[in-house]
Amino acid sequence: MSYKFSEKMDHLKPSVIREILKYSSDPAVIPFSAGNPAPEAFPVEKVQAISANILAKEPIAALQYSITEGYPKLIEAVTNDLKNRLHIGADTDRVIITSGAQQGIDLTVKSFCSKGDVIICESPSFVGSLNAFKASEATLVGVPMDEDGMNMEQLEDALKANPTAKLIYTIPNFQNPSGITMSMEKRRKMYQLAKQYGVCIIEDNPYGDLRFAGEDVPAIKTLDEDGIVIYCGSFSKVLSPGLRVGFVCANADIIQKITVLKQTNDVHTNILAQMVAYHFMTECDFVGHLENLRKIYKHKAELMLSEMDKHFSKNVTWTIPQGGLFLWCTLPEDQDMLAFCQDAVKNHKVAVVPGNAFMTSDDVPTTSFRMNYSTPTDEQIIAGVKILGDLMK
Amino acid sequence: MSYKFSEKMDHLKPSVIREILKYSSDPAVIPFSAGNPAPEAFPVEKVQAISANILAKEPIAALQYSITEGYPKLIEAVTNDLKNRLHIGADTDRVIITSGAQQGIDLTVKSFCSKGDVIICESPSFVGSLNAFKASEATLVGVPMDEDGMNMEQLEDALKANPTAKLIYTIPNFQNPSGITMSMEKRRKMYQLAKQYGVCIIEDNPYGDLRFAGEDVPAIKTLDEDGIVIYCGSFSKVLSPGLRVGFVCANADIIQKITVLKQTNDVHTNILAQMVAYHFMTECDFVGHLENLRKIYKHKAELMLSEMDKHFSKNVTWTIPQGGLFLWCTLPEDQDMLAFCQDAVKNHKVAVVPGNAFMTSDDVPTTSFRMNYSTPTDEQIIAGVKILGDLMK
Repeated sequence: MSYKFSEKMDHLKPSVIREILKYSSDPAVIPFSAGNPAPEAFPVEKVQAISANILAKEPIAALQYSITEGYPKLIEAVTNDLKNRLHIGADTDRVIITSGAQQGIDLTVKSFCSKGDVIICESPSFVGSLNAFKASEATLVGVPMDEDGMNMEQLEDALKANPTAKLIYTIPNFQNPSGITMSMEKRRKMYQLAKQYGVCIIEDNPYGDLRFAGEDVPAIKTLDEDGIVIYCGSFSKVLSPGLRVGFVCANADIIQKITVLKQTNDVHTNILAQMVAYHFMTECDFVGHLENLRKIYKHKAELMLSEMDKHFSKNVTWTIPQGGLFLWCTLPEDQDMLAFCQDAVKNHKVAVVPGNAFMTSDDVPTTSFRMNYSTPTDEQIIAGVKILGDLMK
Repeated sequence: MSYKFSEKMDHLKPSVIREILKYSSDPAVIPFSAGNPAPEAFPVEKVQAISANILAKEPIAALQYSITEGYPKLIEAVTNDLKNRLHIGADTDRVIITSGAQQGIDLTVKSFCSKGDVIICESPSFVGSLNAFKASEATLVGVPMDEDGMNMEQLEDALKANPTAKLIYTIPNFQNPSGITMSMEKRRKMYQLAKQYGVCIIEDNPYGDLRFAGEDVPAIKTLDEDGIVIYCGSFSKVLSPGLRVGFVCANADIIQKITVLKQTNDVHTNILAQMVAYHFMTECDFVGHLENLRKIYKHKAELMLSEMDKHFSKNVTWTIPQGGLFLWCTLPEDQDMLAFCQDAVKNHKVAVVPGNAFMTSDDVPTTSFRMNYSTPTDEQIIAGVKILGDLMK
């Protein structure tokens, strides 16, 4: 039978990127293409103890249906952590627990956008979010980035040119894929423009706790006197991505819409995972754990950067991230980046992600690619960077 | 700020039903309104042992990112179980693991339906699915049920009257909310009509393993030579709803679309929960566990029915379920069902769900309400039925 799928599925076709990522699943390939936390970053023994304790003391609560909004103690812990550590959260704000930040972003966009509504985002941006936007049949408008975040003149031009814009999407800290952090000045400007043009901001901050250089920059949400910032957080990078626990903090009216959609989407997030996250963040020196993660990623990032200094061609440029998991490498304009990436993975078993994966449409030209330093071992970083360097020559 | 939400959010308003369900969360209320598995149905010790074993032997696999399609060993176990026990699954079919059957239904509908596409469903039907359909901006067409399932003449009329129909949605076994099971004759007829009119069937079967009376009726999916049946299953009623693990078995083309949407929705289902489900179904006498569940629910259903025989008015009718968790009780046509339900919960602390919660729109009249026997204790069943009986007089 030839199935009559929804038109929106046409926007979500498998791409050349998927082909390259297929090669990456080969264990012999050096995975600079991944985005996985380092295996040594998982607090395995603590998760073992917490899980055993929950299933011994509260097994029925952990296995039974729960409420859509999330495990109440975790909501409270997240609300307090946002308030105390990040100075986030107004009296009119609420927190909902989601099945990863991905679900928070997906349901936020579905709450706001109908077919053709415009979402303005950084170009490049996180492919998972871009695909969620496309699945909502939203129209994507990409704004190029400077060294300190989205170009604000071009953001204002985009807002003027798109009166049906509903949302601005940004990853302000150690952006995926670019590694760039938005300056406080630009955060203020973005907030002011959003307010002026009557749009909301999705502030996606999965990496904010992973700063290993420079000074923390307050979240855009700290400026939010008008209830226009939808803050998405995640336990994926600070505890475990396999648990699929994230959250959204936003005005109660917005959280109510997300809750209704979540109920039709997956009823609620796995409750044992929510209970594990709650006990981990309140009883296991969460702040000390974050310190340890920063050390792990600082070491890996510095190792990759110093190896790149040694081996990469002088006409290749890259970003210097102050945290997170990624950096962004750009070949000279006359080079065929896609051919470079294909050659690297097929013939030399080093996988990076071609930059066009992160563009708002296939026809935005780029000679950049994304490199990840959290997944590979130190040995793989040293070997893989040398191989890429040799290929540049 | 007054937010510019998507138009589709207008279809998803909180209702009078929610008000009644709010009262149900009071622990002093007898919960005939719930749909929770009985607490004694959870294999707590086995889940404890399996979880400890996984986190001891494969902690990184349980905590790291995984693939969207699901834990490969669970996919294989579900595929085999469907084939061996239920005779389901063609060579062209595939299985995807979802975050509960709810997500399977939600993403199937999003794959097929654009605004205004028609979904034909039983009237009454499961409110979670109806809301998922509304969130996709589909148009719902309800077909009344006979004692042996959807009325087939009216189904054909609906197919003729709605050439843009994309899907038929059915819960063939111990339907929620009616408790009705579709006869084999009607299953064959539904399949033939679906084929003739070029639509697919979503066969939602969360309760099929909970038959405690009568003979099993083969799934519609067993007839599926044409790849038109999308079978949704769940571990919620046979293991634990809190784990949020379900699955879809359908033609590979359909599973590919669902996979793309799932990646944008929650990346993948909690991996520890998938591993628990895998070990439980392959190493813990799954069939023996199902036997035990059937005993629990047989006892509870028979207790409720015998108490209803004793106490309910003679002009009140109800269905006699052969399995599952629910029965459907109908007051005489001249009675105000909603007032009855409100009085029962507010003044007498017995909660049932008013039948209009399960109708395709608020203006379909009904004097029925849903009663659940899996959640309350035996004592609550005896006390609650007596209270409802007294209120009928």
